[in-house]
Parts: sequence; structure tokens; C-alpha cells
Amino acid sequence: MNASAYARENQQKFLGELQEFLRIPSISAQPAHQHDIERAAAWLSAQLSTAGFPKVEVMATDGPPIVYAEWLTAGADKPTVLVYGHYDVQPPDPLDEWHTPPFEPSVIDDDLFARGASDDKGQALIHVKAAEAFHATAGALPVNVKCIFEGEEEIGSPHLTPFIETHRELLAADLGLISDTHILGKTIPAIIYALRGLAYIEVTVTGPDHDLHSGLYGGAVNNPINALCRMIAQMQDEEGHITIPGFYDKVRALTPEESVDLTKVPFEQKAWLEETGVKADWGEPDYTVVERTTARPTLDVNGIWGGYIEPGAKTVLPSQASAKISMRLVPDQDPVEITRLVKDYLLSIAPPTVNISVKDLHGGEGAIVRRDSPAMKAAFQAYTHVFGTEPIFIREGGSIPVVATFQKILGIETILMGFGLPDDRLHSPNEKFHIPNFYKGIETVVRFMELLGT
Amino acid sequence: MNASAYARENQQKFLGELQEFLRIPSISAQPAHQHDIERAAAWLSAQLSTAGFPKVEVMATDGPPIVYAEWLTAGADKPTVLVYGHYDVQPPDPLDEWHTPPFEPSVIDDDLFARGASDDKGQALIHVKAAEAFHATAGALPVNVKCIFEGEEEIGSPHLTPFIETHRELLAADLGLISDTHILGKTIPAIIYALRGLAYIEVTVTGPDHDLHSGLYGGAVNNPINALCRMIAQMQDEEGHITIPGFYDKVRALTPEESVDLTKVPFEQKAWLEETGVKADWGEPDYTVVERTTARPTLDVNGIWGGYIEPGAKTVLPSQASAKISMRLVPDQDPVEITRLVKDYLLSIAPPTVNISVKDLHGGEGAIVRRDSPAMKAAFQAYTHVFGTEPIFIREGGSIPVVATFQKILGIETILMGFGLPDDRLHSPNEKFHIPNFYKGIETVVRFMELLGT
Repeated sequence: MNASAYARENQQKFLGELQEFLRIPSISAQPAHQHDIERAAAWLSAQLSTAGFPKVEVMATDGPPIVYAEWLTAGADKPTVLVYGHYDVQPPDPLDEWHTPPFEPSVIDDDLFARGASDDKGQALIHVKAAEAFHATAGALPVNVKCIFEGEEEIGSPHLTPFIETHRELLAADLGLISDTHILGKTIPAIIYALRGLAYIEVTVTGPDHDLHSGLYGGAVNNPINALCRMIAQMQDEEGHITIPGFYDKVRALTPEESVDLTKVPFEQKAWLEETGVKADWGEPDYTVVERTTARPTLDVNGIWGGYIEPGAKTVLPSQASAKISMRLVPDQDPVEITRLVKDYLLSIAPPTVNISVKDLHGGEGAIVRRDSPAMKAAFQAYTHVFGTEPIFIREGGSIPVVATFQKILGIETILMGFGLPDDRLHSPNEKFHIPNFYKGIETVVRFMELLGT
Repeated sequence: MNASAYARENQQKFLGELQEFLRIPSISAQPAHQHDIERAAAWLSAQLSTAGFPKVEVMATDGPPIVYAEWLTAGADKPTVLVYGHYDVQPPDPLDEWHTPPFEPSVIDDDLFARGASDDKGQALIHVKAAEAFHATAGALPVNVKCIFEGEEEIGSPHLTPFIETHRELLAADLGLISDTHILGKTIPAIIYALRGLAYIEVTVTGPDHDLHSGLYGGAVNNPINALCRMIAQMQDEEGHITIPGFYDKVRALTPEESVDLTKVPFEQKAWLEETGVKADWGEPDYTVVERTTARPTLDVNGIWGGYIEPGAKTVLPSQASAKISMRLVPDQDPVEITRLVKDYLLSIAPPTVNISVKDLHGGEGAIVRRDSPAMKAAFQAYTHVFGTEPIFIREGGSIPVVATFQKILGIETILMGFGLPDDRLHSPNEKFHIPNFYKGIETVVRFMELLGT
């Protein structure tokens, strides 16, 4: 029996193991779940040992631990692959919109519903199970493999870059490999060659130093909520064009070839409207929906709060209002520079009657990788072999800052072998992973390793 | 011993009783406190009986009960006064900004700190204690008195107008009397002759039908928070001028005489900045701070919420965002008409990519009363007698919709005999009542009744 056959025969076992993993509510954004973060790291390290990795270590950082594993017996003439994944998940709220409990994985038809099913526990486990398939059959991997799995991707990985910097030698490799993205449909494989970056701030506007009665002070005290709304409205025009000076200066335009390729991405307006539940699409009129969501920078308020938000009517003129605001960036925008531009702009438009403070929550650079490298060719063939059809090259709207970090610190390009689907509801209630994709993912990675090792 | 002497001799007893009243957390906005609402009504009815009212009744409504009392033995040739007050209070939040617990009344120097101390339990109790003073000395009141105390003023009194309409005969009187306002300083009495009205709405913007990942959909889905902020920014210009079409059409301009009178209101910029904690005043440049806060209509967002508002960074593109928005109105603006104008305007500026819903939370008309009636003259003399100086005629920025209701349904004018101070922090943390004003209030009402009965 070869590794692929083992993978096919053990699908039910793998699914049960993924469900175990998903039952651990390892929410990195919420300090109350720190113990679950540690449980998830311990669970994963035990799995790696079982899969045959001779060296597995749970390495401490100033944040959640990083699970490291290596299996380097393929020989010096074989490439070394550095696999990355994350074992933390997004908070599940709003809880009342889940149809099944977020941390009790539920199989409904061909889907597995749970927070983290697709992002990224299900996809991270693919690599562990591919290694296990080689371990149980050939007894060895066709290439050298190192793995790092972190526990704070969903809060911007504050300790990952320092860790990689400190462990350059330990992590030295020929290429990166990550499964934390999606393909285009159940039968439409795709390879992402470009990612958006992120800049994320929190702005707080303070007016009076305590809450006031709006009847006694309204009209003479600038209300911090009104002021914040006015500032937010000035960051972007009605069509989504961002009005912060200098914001677009470093945006790399799409090449004509890329624009043509992006038209191959299947997009059905009707299905997209159903998937999002909006009445109509929105955004920069000179770009298609696919371009707007993958190749153009954007600005979204992710959260806003201030004043009285309980039921009923309270006539308060509040002391403060705050908003979390994030910007998706494209190559070659620099998140540090963009954060500075946004801060400067907010300070310049803040009315003199209020104080504002801007907190930098986190950021990451976008990335673009070559489409003609040997590893990319192996990935292309592996998808074609398992899915029976050639993958499409696409850009991705989300951010995987580690891709830029690998490039910068380790000097390696990263192959993004995703197995999620566009409707997996990442970060939303009712997140799911399409179970056949979990199985195909394991087989595709097995095939990729085999091709890379020949 | 006369009633005034009794009032002076029993100050400590009255203070203890007010503290009892304040310990009941009768928060009308929060359904969890319904039992406390009932306890407060029962406590007040027992006090009215003790004060000598021959008839006291806790009358059911579809909301909190109305405590009714009458004492009509002064004779048909004496006027009948209808006293109004409310026994409910605002929610105490934000709790962590209180220096003493909001429902454990604390005496610090000459002030009594508690939620409701000034608004309105302390001021409502003045009338009960004035009656008690007559009861304990003369054994009778110099005028006929009816009282109604309601338990939902802070949520807009939804059941008060129907109650008054149903009980026109029971409530028939010659004038209304309310203590729920403030004077200008410890030694600067004032009589309010005009009030602002209120229109209060809650608007909800819905974009996608579930929360989305901002990386995958940002740029092509109109974010409901951004859309809401843009709509709020369009309701008012930077200087506070409201841009809703028709909003100012029915505003009654200040007469030259009124403008001159309002300049007599003591206003010190430095003290006002300290009191509010703002860097500078704000608002319509053609009006003074006193005019802006009392004689001009205003618009304030009282609360806003949407998306992820916990610590950390979540890259969500939320399904919904909401805001509570209230407008202070002046004579002759009609809250029903203004609410309609606001709804129409919001619907007209809402982008076609989102849905909006507007809920009418509550409203009330402004009011103006004559300054030369016999009752107003008696009030003027009573203040002069007790405070040793003549009161100033002022307009009030807050709303007491029952004044317009009394005018409309019962055909009576209302005298506002307030005893709060401008820095009582109504609706804010650390609300207080200046204890000497509580005592002077009782004596002023005693004197007013005596003057009115001669």
C-alpha cells in the first residue's frame, strides 16, 4: 500500500481526529481561553509524534507556544519544505447565529461545521495526516519537512516574526508550504499566487471627560460619536475609493496578463448575492468584483461602539466613542507606512473640540510569488492529478503575512495549497469545511511531496 | 409651630427618608428591575399616606403603576394644584465611573450622591414633605392638591398620556406643578418658562445577511458601519447645523426680550469647560452656549454599535450596525413631524446596497408658559422669600413632555419649581443633589402653597 492508498483507507479516522482538534476552543483573541490554546498546542504535538516526526517540540514564546516538528531523513539532495499553519481560531460570536454549537463539530451531509474547521485547523491537519500516510507505508518522507504551527494568527501573530528571526537556522528551508486558503469550487482547484496585506487600527474619540445629559449640554458640546462618524465618512467616498492622502501611491497595478487571468475566475453575480445576502455589489466602479476583493486595497470598519447600547432610550451625550478600522493592502503597500498615513490623516481631520487616540492593532504585508518555479509546477501537477482538472491561478483577498515574513527573513517563496471553499464562512457563524476537500487535500499534499522528491 | 418651622426642624428625618427612596434601583429602561419599580411605587404611596393625603392609590397601567394621591379639603374657592413627579431613574452605567455606589446614597459634605438624587426622587419627595409639614402643623393644606408620580419618565412615558386622557376628570386642576429642573446656583434661584422637546429614533443598517470575512468580501460589499457613519455625518454639518430638509421650518425664534433675558444667565466659560471636561465649546456660531443648549434644536447620537467590539482585532465585515439618535426640539417643532422628516431623510440618503430600518423610540413636545400668571407670581415670591433673592427667568435644555401633555389634555399651565443645580450630573455617573436645596425646596413649596391659598 502506498501513502495515497493509506490516506484513502483512513478517511474516517482522520475525520474523527479533526473533530477532536475542533472541540478545543483555542480563541487567541480572548485571554480567558489561554488554557485552550495550550491544550490545542499539546494535542497537535502528540499528533505530529504519532505521524512519525522524530523531533517534536512545543516552543515557548512571549505569547502562545509554537509547535515545531522536523523529519529530515530524505537526504541532502532532496528539498526541505517548511510547513506553516495555525491552531488558534477566531471568536465565534455572534453566537446566536450558529445553527450548531461552534465547538461541537457537526457533520451535516458532506460538510463539517465548527469554528476553525477550514481556518485553519482542518487545513493544518492535512499536512500531519500526509506525513502519517508516508510513515505508515514507506516509513519515510520523500522530502525533508519542518513544521511550525502558531497559536495567534487570528490576532496578527505578534510573536511569530521575532521567533523566525531568532530561529533562522532551525527554520532554514527551500520553500514554504501553507494550506490556509481556498480553491474556487468543489471541482475547481486553484492556486493563489498573490495575497493582500493588512493594516489595523483602533481609534478613540474623547469629548467631555464624563457622560453628559444631552438635554443640558447638547448643541454646545461636540458629541464624540457624531465626530467619529464624520471622520470615518471622510476616509472613503461613497463608491469605496479611499480618500487618505498617499494611500494609493505604492499600489502595483495589475498587468494586462493578470487582468485576463482574473476573468477566468468563475463569478456568478446571482450566486454571489445569495452567498453574501446583499442587495447589490458595491465598490470602485472601474474594477470587477473579483478585482475589488483580491487586487485592490480596501477599508472596513470592523467594529464601532459608544454611548448607550442597551434596550430603550437614554439621552446621554457620551464621553467616548471608538472604532476598529482595518485596511486590506496590496503589493507594494507597506503596512507601517499606511498606518502612519492613516494616523496623520485622522489627526488632521479631527475637530479641535475633541481628543483622539489611534492604536496600531496589527498589520502585515501583501505578497506575490512566481508562477514558474519547480515547486509551483509540482503543486500544479498534484492538484491536476487529484482533482482531475488543472488549477486556475488567482489572487486572494485575505492576508497571510507569514508569506512576506518567510520571503524577507528566510529568503524563501511559499506555495499556497488551499483546500477551503469560498462559502466556508471563515470568521462568521456556521464556519464549515467540505469533508471531501479535507480528504483530497491530504492526497494532494502526498502527491506534491512525491513529485517534489523525484 | 407653622409648616415652615416643621420643615426646618425635620431636615434630618427627611434626608433619611430620601436615602431610603434612593436605595431602590427603580431603573425603568431595564426589565430586570421591574420589581424595584413596584417597590418604589409602594414606598411612595406609604409616604403620601403618612403625609396626610386622605386618598392614595397605586393605579395600574400597561407599564409601571402611577401613584395617585389627593387632598381636596381646602375648599372650592381655593385652586387645585396637580403635582407631577417620577419615581423611576436612569440606568447607572458606566458603573466603573461612580466614586460611590449609585444605589447606596452617600453624603459627602453638603451633597447626597446617588442615581436619582436630583432626577427626580429628591425633587419629587419635596412635595410629599411639604404636605407632611402642613399635616403635622395646620392639619390641612392651604390649597387643594392632587399628585401623580409615574415610573417610566426615563423611557419616554409611553403610558402617561393615555392615562391622563382616560382620567381627565380625576386629574382636573387649575395648574400643574413640577420639580424636575434646576436653578442656576446655590444662591441663584431661577424659574424655567420654556422647555425643549424630544424626538428619539433607533436606526439599523443591514448589509450582508451574516457577518463576512473582510478579506474575502471587503471592497465589494458595502459595510453597514461605514454606511451608517456616512449617513450620520450627513445629518449635521461640522458646526452643528442640522441638514435634514425642513428641520428648522417651525422653530420659533427668540424674541429680542428673551435674548436679553438669557444674557442674564450667569455663564463662565472656564467653569463650563471644567464642568464638561471638553477642550472648547462647539456648535452653531451665531448663538451663545446658553442659547444653543436651551433655545436651539440639536442632534446627538446617544449610542452606536456594530461588529466586533471585544479586545483585539477581528477582521469582520458585519451584517448590521445601529445607532440611537435623539433630537432636542424647541417650540413649535412637532416631534411626530420631525420624526417623519428624519425617517424620510435617512431613507433618501441610504445607499441602494443596504437596507435600513428606523424605529421611533419616543418623543415629546417642547413648551412655553406665561410669566405673568398668578401662580407664576406666587412661585416668584416664594423663591425670593426662601432664597433671599429674586429668581431669573430661563429656558431649559432638557425635556419634560408632560408639560405639553397637561396643556393639551387638561388645559392647564405648569409651574416648574426646580431645585437641582447645573452640575448635578443627571443621567451621568456621580449624580447628586445639594442637600440644602432639598431643604429649601420643601420650604419654597410650603411658601408657594401658602401664597396660592391666600
